[in-house]
Amino acid sequence: MALIVQKYGGTSVGSPERIKNVAKRVAAARQEGHDVVVVVSAMSGETNRLVALAHEMQEFPDPRELDVVLATGEQVTIGLLAMALKNIGVEAKSYTGWQVAVKTDTAHTKARIEDIDSDRMRADLAQGTVVIVAGFQGISSAGDISTLGRGGSDTSAVALAAALKADECQIYTDVDGVYTTDPRVVPEARRMDTITFEEMLELASLGSKVLQIRSVEFAGKYQVRLRVLSSLKDGGNGTLITFEEDENMEKAVVSGIAFDKNQARINVRGVPDKPGIAYQILGAVADANVDVDMIIQNMGNEGTTDFSFTVPRGDYKPTLELLGSLKDSIGAAEVSGDDAVCKVSIVGLGMRSHVGIAARMFHALASENINIQMISTSEIKVSVLIDEKYLELATRVLHKEFGLDKA
Amino acid sequence: MALIVQKYGGTSVGSPERIKNVAKRVAAARQEGHDVVVVVSAMSGETNRLVALAHEMQEFPDPRELDVVLATGEQVTIGLLAMALKNIGVEAKSYTGWQVAVKTDTAHTKARIEDIDSDRMRADLAQGTVVIVAGFQGISSAGDISTLGRGGSDTSAVALAAALKADECQIYTDVDGVYTTDPRVVPEARRMDTITFEEMLELASLGSKVLQIRSVEFAGKYQVRLRVLSSLKDGGNGTLITFEEDENMEKAVVSGIAFDKNQARINVRGVPDKPGIAYQILGAVADANVDVDMIIQNMGNEGTTDFSFTVPRGDYKPTLELLGSLKDSIGAAEVSGDDAVCKVSIVGLGMRSHVGIAARMFHALASENINIQMISTSEIKVSVLIDEKYLELATRVLHKEFGLDKA
Repeated sequence: MALIVQKYGGTSVGSPERIKNVAKRVAAARQEGHDVVVVVSAMSGETNRLVALAHEMQEFPDPRELDVVLATGEQVTIGLLAMALKNIGVEAKSYTGWQVAVKTDTAHTKARIEDIDSDRMRADLAQGTVVIVAGFQGISSAGDISTLGRGGSDTSAVALAAALKADECQIYTDVDGVYTTDPRVVPEARRMDTITFEEMLELASLGSKVLQIRSVEFAGKYQVRLRVLSSLKDGGNGTLITFEEDENMEKAVVSGIAFDKNQARINVRGVPDKPGIAYQILGAVADANVDVDMIIQNMGNEGTTDFSFTVPRGDYKPTLELLGSLKDSIGAAEVSGDDAVCKVSIVGLGMRSHVGIAARMFHALASENINIQMISTSEIKVSVLIDEKYLELATRVLHKEFGLDKA
Repeated sequence: MALIVQKYGGTSVGSPERIKNVAKRVAAARQEGHDVVVVVSAMSGETNRLVALAHEMQEFPDPRELDVVLATGEQVTIGLLAMALKNIGVEAKSYTGWQVAVKTDTAHTKARIEDIDSDRMRADLAQGTVVIVAGFQGISSAGDISTLGRGGSDTSAVALAAALKADECQIYTDVDGVYTTDPRVVPEARRMDTITFEEMLELASLGSKVLQIRSVEFAGKYQVRLRVLSSLKDGGNGTLITFEEDENMEKAVVSGIAFDKNQARINVRGVPDKPGIAYQILGAVADANVDVDMIIQNMGNEGTTDFSFTVPRGDYKPTLELLGSLKDSIGAAEVSGDDAVCKVSIVGLGMRSHVGIAARMFHALASENINIQMISTSEIKVSVLIDEKYLELATRVLHKEFGLDKA
């Protein structure tokens, strides 16, 4: 008998029928003798409906009030799931974020969890009652309703698991685990039984959509045992995110291939090579609230230097315009860019102990005539920026090169 | 400058456009220098949608969980209205029932307000901020989300007005005041400028749908000055519910005519006339959770007695069946009934000081050959049960008889 936190996303609770299915899964875990805390999202489509209503009121909805409106989505789901459980004879009680209480800071629409009061949940669990908690929401230090931002329900689940010292936090999604890469791109992609926390963190930050990166960070910080499972298929153990490198892991040098289409490249060429020039360019971009991802600085001609960096594709045009307007004051010869690019990354703990992995990656891409525009590396990953049209080809080639199609 | 509580029902906030109109009304009251607290219902249709979802989960939804789900309706409206106000430059802040806090007992789906904490509202009002409160909901003494039942938002508004010692509580509806009778039945019906609290209470309990009876009771208990206004039409002072009888009032013997189609008559004939027989019959009905309205007991033949009483039409069949099954144990000769009946009532403070009003009513009905089946009276009202087909005719005749069509 263990204490398990289960999280079900919007698709998994997207209709009355699906909520009943979730109730059956929860009942099965109770049947096995586990104590269960369930975290749910809003029914799919509901958050978008509420956001649209808010935008009819105000072009930029007031963040405090937007949270009041958005938090209702999860509140509906918790009540419905409690009813569905009671309907099949399982004692259950629902709680909103403020009831639990999930205490956050006052950064509305992207609040951070500061503390969780687990007394009320523990009392219910001791009675054999299933505790259902609204994901994505909390109560701010000012006593207001707050929400955690996109994917916040994953973070809620992990934070609750940490507060309750749960044995496992199970994230139920529409995929049955973490794959070596996206199976829609590479049919040979395999589900991994385990992946290390560090690799998962890289994959999440590199564009894999299975887990929200904040929830992975949270799990790392509080050593929460995380498992990704399918809420649609029965059976299967999904993928466990471990904190120890097991033997299998050591053998696979590269564990997964991630890709990200939400990239655009900006080039600022021929700027005077003097101290502070990087800040002059990138500081202006940061002030405009644009996230810069990969950054490269190269020597240019005659005492000048060239900058290249990537931004989210939606920020491409405004960033180009911004730098265009600064071109003269920076003293740049040229500001240009390309928004038909993508980032492909290989991730693996094994890179730490193996040399030449990056070179193998570059060679495999070159053998398919795929030109590399930018490179960025960390201890356990290598990312390259390439022409978007090569995304599928590059992913397939690398998946094969590092033997990920073999069990 | 006054402190005003305004309440807008589901129709008044039924679409984004209507919420914006409510914002304009609130802004106008601020413009006049008033402090404003706004109580809103769920957007029309929303509560029914949520109830339907709940019924897909459980045939009889768990009351605690039903409240969790239903309370989201008003929560959406308060956030949207706050945005609409901010959008036109009016400072506003929304609060749910638990935030205010509207403290209730634990009778889920029909909770009673026990206390209201007005500190947070007062602080906002002192800052010139419009306070928006979700109607219909509160927080129970167990810390759970509670709702007040149908029409609960009126009660929320009156209770808030009482807690804040507001100068006036304005109930905005889809009619522009309280009428001498329903204008759809009698086109000559007139809006009353004022009506006494006692008359309003009788009208509300007799089937007039303008105000929920609990809110009128609450207003009476805490001496809250209530006004009914239209949220759809501009201008007009609506109807003020007063606590003093003014001179006009004294002149009108009858102030209004109410009717109620939700009536069915049950007859239990020829029961032994012995102590406790009324309890034997009506106790069984009460145990079945059926509200009995009018009750008449008559002498029957040879030591027997006849009972007649009315029940809500939806309870007619089950009540007939219940009493049919008890017929032998009660020793009744016959159990019968009629569900094509209605109740028509005249209400007026002036009846206290005028004799013969009931006789005038019976005479007017007789002159149109309308047969009276049952009669019930109080100090300021006379109700008669008649064949449903005469409802409109009886209402028109009485409206004319008591001069209500003249200003």
